[in-house]
Amino acid sequence: MAKMITLCEILIEFNALTSGPLRHVTYFEKHIAGSEANYCVAFTKQGNECGIIARLGEDEFGYNAMEWLRGKGVDVSHIKFDPAPTGIFFIQRHYPVPHKSNFIYYRKGSAGSKLSPEDVDENYIRSADLVHSSGITLAISDSAKNAVIKAFNNAKVRSLDTNIRLKLWSAEQAREIIMGVLKEYPLKFLITDIEDSRILVRESDPDAAVSKLSNYAEIVIMKLGPKGSTVYYEGKKYHSPGYQVPVEDVTGAGDALGGTFLSLYYKGFSIEKALDYAVVASTLSVMVRGDHENIPSTSDIESFLEEMKR
Amino acid sequence: MAKMITLCEILIEFNALTSGPLRHVTYFEKHIAGSEANYCVAFTKQGNECGIIARLGEDEFGYNAMEWLRGKGVDVSHIKFDPAPTGIFFIQRHYPVPHKSNFIYYRKGSAGSKLSPEDVDENYIRSADLVHSSGITLAISDSAKNAVIKAFNNAKVRSLDTNIRLKLWSAEQAREIIMGVLKEYPLKFLITDIEDSRILVRESDPDAAVSKLSNYAEIVIMKLGPKGSTVYYEGKKYHSPGYQVPVEDVTGAGDALGGTFLSLYYKGFSIEKALDYAVVASTLSVMVRGDHENIPSTSDIESFLEEMKR
Amino acid sequence: MAKMITLCEILIEFNALTSGPLRHVTYFEKHIAGSEANYCVAFTKQGNECGIIARLGEDEFGYNAMEWLRGKGVDVSHIKFDPAPTGIFFIQRHYPVPHKSNFIYYRKGSAGSKLSPEDVDENYIRSADLVHSSGITLAISDSAKNAVIKAFNNAKVRSLDTNIRLKLWSAEQAREIIMGVLKEYPLKFLITDIEDSRILVRESDPDAAVSKLSNYAEIVIMKLGPKGSTVYYEGKKYHSPGYQVPVEDVTGAGDALGGTFLSLYYKGFSIEKALDYAVVASTLSVMVRGDHENIPSTSDIESFLEEMKR
Amino acid sequence: MAKMITLCEILIEFNALTSGPLRHVTYFEKHIAGSEANYCVAFTKQGNECGIIARLGEDEFGYNAMEWLRGKGVDVSHIKFDPAPTGIFFIQRHYPVPHKSNFIYYRKGSAGSKLSPEDVDENYIRSADLVHSSGITLAISDSAKNAVIKAFNNAKVRSLDTNIRLKLWSAEQAREIIMGVLKEYPLKFLITDIEDSRILVRESDPDAAVSKLSNYAEIVIMKLGPKGSTVYYEGKKYHSPGYQVPVEDVTGAGDALGGTFLSLYYKGFSIEKALDYAVVASTLSVMVRGDHENIPSTSDIESFLEEMKR
Amino acid sequence: MAKMITLCEILIEFNALTSGPLRHVTYFEKHIAGSEANYCVAFTKQGNECGIIARLGEDEFGYNAMEWLRGKGVDVSHIKFDPAPTGIFFIQRHYPVPHKSNFIYYRKGSAGSKLSPEDVDENYIRSADLVHSSGITLAISDSAKNAVIKAFNNAKVRSLDTNIRLKLWSAEQAREIIMGVLKEYPLKFLITDIEDSRILVRESDPDAAVSKLSNYAEIVIMKLGPKGSTVYYEGKKYHSPGYQVPVEDVTGAGDALGGTFLSLYYKGFSIEKALDYAVVASTLSVMVRGDHENIPSTSDIESFLEEMKR
Amino acid sequence: MAKMITLCEILIEFNALTSGPLRHVTYFEKHIAGSEANYCVAFTKQGNECGIIARLGEDEFGYNAMEWLRGKGVDVSHIKFDPAPTGIFFIQRHYPVPHKSNFIYYRKGSAGSKLSPEDVDENYIRSADLVHSSGITLAISDSAKNAVIKAFNNAKVRSLDTNIRLKLWSAEQAREIIMGVLKEYPLKFLITDIEDSRILVRESDPDAAVSKLSNYAEIVIMKLGPKGSTVYYEGKKYHSPGYQVPVEDVTGAGDALGGTFLSLYYKGFSIEKALDYAVVASTLSVMVRGDHENIPSTSDIESFLEEMKR
Repeated sequence: MAKMITLCEILIEFNALTSGPLRHVTYFEKHIAGSEANYCVAFTKQGNECGIIARLGEDEFGYNAMEWLRGKGVDVSHIKFDPAPTGIFFIQRHYPVPHKSNFIYYRKGSAGSKLSPEDVDENYIRSADLVHSSGITLAISDSAKNAVIKAFNNAKVRSLDTNIRLKLWSAEQAREIIMGVLKEYPLKFLITDIEDSRILVRESDPDAAVSKLSNYAEIVIMKLGPKGSTVYYEGKKYHSPGYQVPVEDVTGAGDALGGTFLSLYYKGFSIEKALDYAVVASTLSVMVRGDHENIPSTSDIESFLEEMKR
Repeated sequence: MAKMITLCEILIEFNALTSGPLRHVTYFEKHIAGSEANYCVAFTKQGNECGIIARLGEDEFGYNAMEWLRGKGVDVSHIKFDPAPTGIFFIQRHYPVPHKSNFIYYRKGSAGSKLSPEDVDENYIRSADLVHSSGITLAISDSAKNAVIKAFNNAKVRSLDTNIRLKLWSAEQAREIIMGVLKEYPLKFLITDIEDSRILVRESDPDAAVSKLSNYAEIVIMKLGPKGSTVYYEGKKYHSPGYQVPVEDVTGAGDALGGTFLSLYYKGFSIEKALDYAVVASTLSVMVRGDHENIPSTSDIESFLEEMKR
Repeated sequence: MAKMITLCEILIEFNALTSGPLRHVTYFEKHIAGSEANYCVAFTKQGNECGIIARLGEDEFGYNAMEWLRGKGVDVSHIKFDPAPTGIFFIQRHYPVPHKSNFIYYRKGSAGSKLSPEDVDENYIRSADLVHSSGITLAISDSAKNAVIKAFNNAKVRSLDTNIRLKLWSAEQAREIIMGVLKEYPLKFLITDIEDSRILVRESDPDAAVSKLSNYAEIVIMKLGPKGSTVYYEGKKYHSPGYQVPVEDVTGAGDALGGTFLSLYYKGFSIEKALDYAVVASTLSVMVRGDHENIPSTSDIESFLEEMKR
Repeated sequence: MAKMITLCEILIEFNALTSGPLRHVTYFEKHIAGSEANYCVAFTKQGNECGIIARLGEDEFGYNAMEWLRGKGVDVSHIKFDPAPTGIFFIQRHYPVPHKSNFIYYRKGSAGSKLSPEDVDENYIRSADLVHSSGITLAISDSAKNAVIKAFNNAKVRSLDTNIRLKLWSAEQAREIIMGVLKEYPLKFLITDIEDSRILVRESDPDAAVSKLSNYAEIVIMKLGPKGSTVYYEGKKYHSPGYQVPVEDVTGAGDALGGTFLSLYYKGFSIEKALDYAVVASTLSVMVRGDHENIPSTSDIESFLEEMKR
Repeated sequence: MAKMITLCEILIEFNALTSGPLRHVTYFEKHIAGSEANYCVAFTKQGNECGIIARLGEDEFGYNAMEWLRGKGVDVSHIKFDPAPTGIFFIQRHYPVPHKSNFIYYRKGSAGSKLSPEDVDENYIRSADLVHSSGITLAISDSAKNAVIKAFNNAKVRSLDTNIRLKLWSAEQAREIIMGVLKEYPLKFLITDIEDSRILVRESDPDAAVSKLSNYAEIVIMKLGPKGSTVYYEGKKYHSPGYQVPVEDVTGAGDALGGTFLSLYYKGFSIEKALDYAVVASTLSVMVRGDHENIPSTSDIESFLEEMKR
Repeated sequence: MAKMITLCEILIEFNALTSGPLRHVTYFEKHIAGSEANYCVAFTKQGNECGIIARLGEDEFGYNAMEWLRGKGVDVSHIKFDPAPTGIFFIQRHYPVPHKSNFIYYRKGSAGSKLSPEDVDENYIRSADLVHSSGITLAISDSAKNAVIKAFNNAKVRSLDTNIRLKLWSAEQAREIIMGVLKEYPLKFLITDIEDSRILVRESDPDAAVSKLSNYAEIVIMKLGPKGSTVYYEGKKYHSPGYQVPVEDVTGAGDALGGTFLSLYYKGFSIEKALDYAVVASTLSVMVRGDHENIPSTSDIESFLEEMKR
């Protein structure tokens, strides 16, 4: 069993029960979220182990997240409680762009943003096969960024999802900091998409972008939304096409893809097969509200693939 | 800022929470509706001003509509309360025809149908750039029809959506009265569709129908449902294609289109651009229950269009 | 097994999902209602048989009521469909008076009000042990009133619930017509309450009222809301006290009481015991939305009474 | 009016309110189900008559099913109550395969499985034009299977839907018993699909399968899911294509198809027209939760077909 | 018609749909709140006029509040939009203390807290008969406090609800600032309760507390929760007892009381009668979720009182 | 920190969303339940540790229970998966007796009933300060009963809640088996109520019953529903009265009481204080659906008690 450790802000998600502008939404459904937490659930779901280093508010929302993630089998032993409130966000779905979601964040000064190097136990980091984080954690605070850097310093293997959120920092800041990390800490896995690539390496063509990004990572995954995903490694390129399904909420789909890929890779799957499976995980995840509730087990992915062959 | 005045019956809509025949629907969701009220919200949403001349019942449903429309920024100063009950209707969705809705009305003798010429303040009418009504208001009662006629008599510019509802009058009555109004009161804007054209001018081909209808209006908009819409003016014709989105309820989609078009026209948009934007408004409006809750602002329409270009 | 026939307007009830003024209620729950229909369900629930003479609209709501009542075991063979719409009403709960409900009716010109003497099959009436109607049916239309009169003319035994609804007629009209019926058609059972007594015989003291009303009926039941109910017969008086329970909606509580009493009376229960059981039926019925869904079977009433003895 | 009698287990269905794995579903919606009960509702819906021979538990769920089916116009006079509990099942929707449903059954030892030859009144059977059952009833218990055999022995005309549920028996058992019944009791109608054909006659090509199955039945209907359905009779073959609609739950779609086909056949429709209509019934039935709530009347099917022609 | 102006933070309230600790609450219902906004709605509801000086975030929640309050008839002409996010809070109901609510706030740095003296138009203030604010607005920021002071400086008449929230400031800060304002700006109306009195004047006996507080205000209202309320003025004391009703959420009950009292006072009611009516408003307001949706009109209060007399 | 181990059947609870007979309930809410599992959550909630020995079905419901209990901090290391289905039950609330609940079980042959002595690891048992089980586990199967006996044989301290469910066994069987266990395995803690006492020692007076039961246990807790609870020990008796609160569902209230009492006893609380706190836990637990979601922490109990002192 492989072990991954992620550093992140765990958030409480309030997902609109109906689509359209939030002013007209009356009911909100609570879920547990956070990009790397989703990665962690996906990683665990495929039969590996995953721990989270994070801070939660010492409030009902923080307790909620702790209980939920422990229930999902995540190693929560390195999640601390902090006096600041647990970060939250609201999801507006399918408006103004159908099949896209928009967020309103309440995470400034949150417990999650208090994540700091002192939370990173070097021995814990060294016990893991893989350390993963994202552009979000690099953006939420200096201390959080430094926590990631400390973890990367001690990691056997590093993985990063670029996940640029322009509500958290400017494109310039994102480029400077993420590229700085890439240059300093060569990755084994880099997960990104077209929008982020345009910001980071000023290329909107996937191949062109990866030709630059692959200087910093052995394996680059380019997420393409409903079109599926392409993986680049050792000069090779493999595309796994997406599936057309009814979309409830796309939030977390990329995390489902990334976390499933990493876990199956460590299970010994070929990169191509791991990506094929990961695209299924991503596909199913958009069919429900909740970032990771629909992430399938390996055998559920196989049921899906078998049906598609018919 | 342009000002439009509409004459209409404001209705309370009880939309089925689930689709299928109403006997199997247990929960109904309350919304505020009425074709020209939807026009008014759409017109206001694009940054112009709109007032309604109408009567509401002096009951909780009437108060509800008044508060809602005032909240949306509509000028409600010419809405009166009447002892008759507020008209209501129920929506059955996706049955027996998927992506279509059927109505059960309780509006006979309603407060809305008491609308009469005495409610039409000529000075108020003259203060507006544009007066709009529809075939529904012509159908609900003689006094309502006469109110429209009085307003049209005093209007700077006239607009009409044919909106024939065969539960309110026969095809023959509809043709006689609407064509009578068209002949007497030349329009600047006529909004219609294939079914109505077949009744009014006995043509089911859009071009053929418009060649007849354009005798009565400078600008004719032919609504084509999910296929988009075509505008005819000065002998020209421009088609704006529709978008495929998941359909929750199509009720009000034509009003979203018409109201958005009129407002953007008065904002100075070209007719073509106004129609392109209006089709987006119409598209988004079918994605939720509620006739006008999903009508987008101009900038939200632009977000939609930008995404489509990618 | 005894058989009762009732004449009534069957209504579709839209009960507010939340309490407070209807303008702030978004969701409504559909139920089948109508005072004498509730009586009929209660009568059937105690193991006797009951048929309804009524008209329903030929629409989804009418079909709904027909299927529901047939499902409950009611004899629906004398319910006709009529082109007019099925009558409906909305319930506002706990506002402005806690534990009371207010109604908004849409029943003017309804199918139910088209009930007429031609719907009353004299042989069917004669087949019944008992014919029951209420002040509501007397109020909704002349033809409905005449249907009741025709049925009363042919009835073995007559029962009437005064049920005065001041939204349907004035106090004067109610008094004139109901007292007229009472004088012409001596009843075996009269079910009434303080408000109605005040209107009918200008007495607000129960005993004083009954001393007048008992001229027209052998058995008079005075409903006292949460305080229970008192029955008067052969110069005797028996009071059955109410029970304190959380109130969801009181609509239909009196019908549950009356229908249960009549049925158990025909089952051979003593008048006192029948009333005790009927008060339990009434008590349970206020705990849910829906007029008759919570009407208990005889054995469920006994479970309740047994628990109260502890 | 034709009369059909079906033998079956009536089940209570708890349908997931949201899609995804049941562990993440909090709310379940209760419906009445059971394959042949669905057939019966569909048969009745087209204006014929249908009775059910079955056992229900003497509990709230059993009473519920009894009231519901009586309400729908089903002849429930041969449904008995049994001390065992009413069988139930849960539906997991769209996971792990989108547009498919999975079931968790609680029906072992249920009242429904106690169905036995003693429940089959030979005179009742002989009064029917047609007796229908399915592989499910053959699978639930020996006594239920024997009840079907007794009914088939006395039936004027026999119909069977193969409906193999591998949670109830193995493929081998299914083949042995169903093929045994087919050999002994020649059918007029056999309704099946590809998966069942593969088990029964080891053919996955529709034509090849039917060439074997048509030895046992005059008319064979091959259900093809969203692709529609093909009917084979007198050496002829007619395919009726499916329609693309949003899928809520596919459970019961085949029953809607089969029951509608049989009923319209007895109404005198040609086999081709009956199948065209049946495919519409099946199409509408997948748009809602609930196995038979969306089964359309003949005239609603015609509204659908008319719209499709436009 | 009297006019009141209030200064406040308008908040979006997310009320738990079910009671108990928030970690176990899945659904939240959105409402518009804020103590002085509630006062304003209550003031308006009794037929007077009320304006709000405040800032809202330029986001869907801010637009929502603006539309809602405009709909309720509030003068929103002095509400500004600010780039900071709209403040929000969550309500946990009936836990750990039944009939009490707890809050989780996300309002630090909110748009509401940006309220500042520059938002206070002195002419607008002078146009009002009455200026009202609360301890909350004094607590949220220095600029907001200064805005209140500027308004009080220009006010004809001043009113203050102490409303101490210990999540916003310490008891010491609350005492220092509120008592400072009281000393500087003599009030006509002071609304408070036992907990606040204990903090402000270190008295927990109502009479003792008021004997100190009445140095700063002509009329002091002591809110006593379910026990009702007591008013002190000109050396007199009048107690209006509460009513026992089912409690959904007590949030906003004191605002309903205060706003109704002030409005009826200006309507010319005696102080005693105004308080009796205000206690009814407060009573009804606890029966629903939503701070001010259940605030009754004067005539609804009278219906309540009439029923109580029976 | 003390450690308790319980043996039990973990069940999935489907709680009626509305009260009344289940035939009229459409929606059911899923919760995790099982008497000793509730004890375990309560025990854990007060800051001690608790493990469960049980079997769950290898299905979505079993996974659900496992994740939920792990999330709540329960030691799930000794819960096994079994091929039989996870046991479930439905709750009918407030009918036919207000404030009481009735159950429909589907647990015959369930995974939970497969609990057997082989599941009981003697070393695990010896690691605990306390072993707890109930009459339910003694009733569900012989193997489960033998598992309890094996655990009791190896337990440092034994606790039993009599919990007689007459749907699982007869009164005679319950008496014989429970009294047999009591005689063989002297308890430290016996938790029971009047109904169970009547069956076990044929006494319905609490004191009389305990005078017999105290032969088998050092500390006897007599649960008295809304009246609170009485504890008997060392010849002493202490009564802790109940609190009147709105009742949503009483299921699990006794478990909340017992588990909280045991945990606080091991925390070093006096027996009297532990009972006072336990009664609060029981009181809060009836205010929501879900057996243990509302079990309070020690400090939440103190907030409750503090409020009551006011």
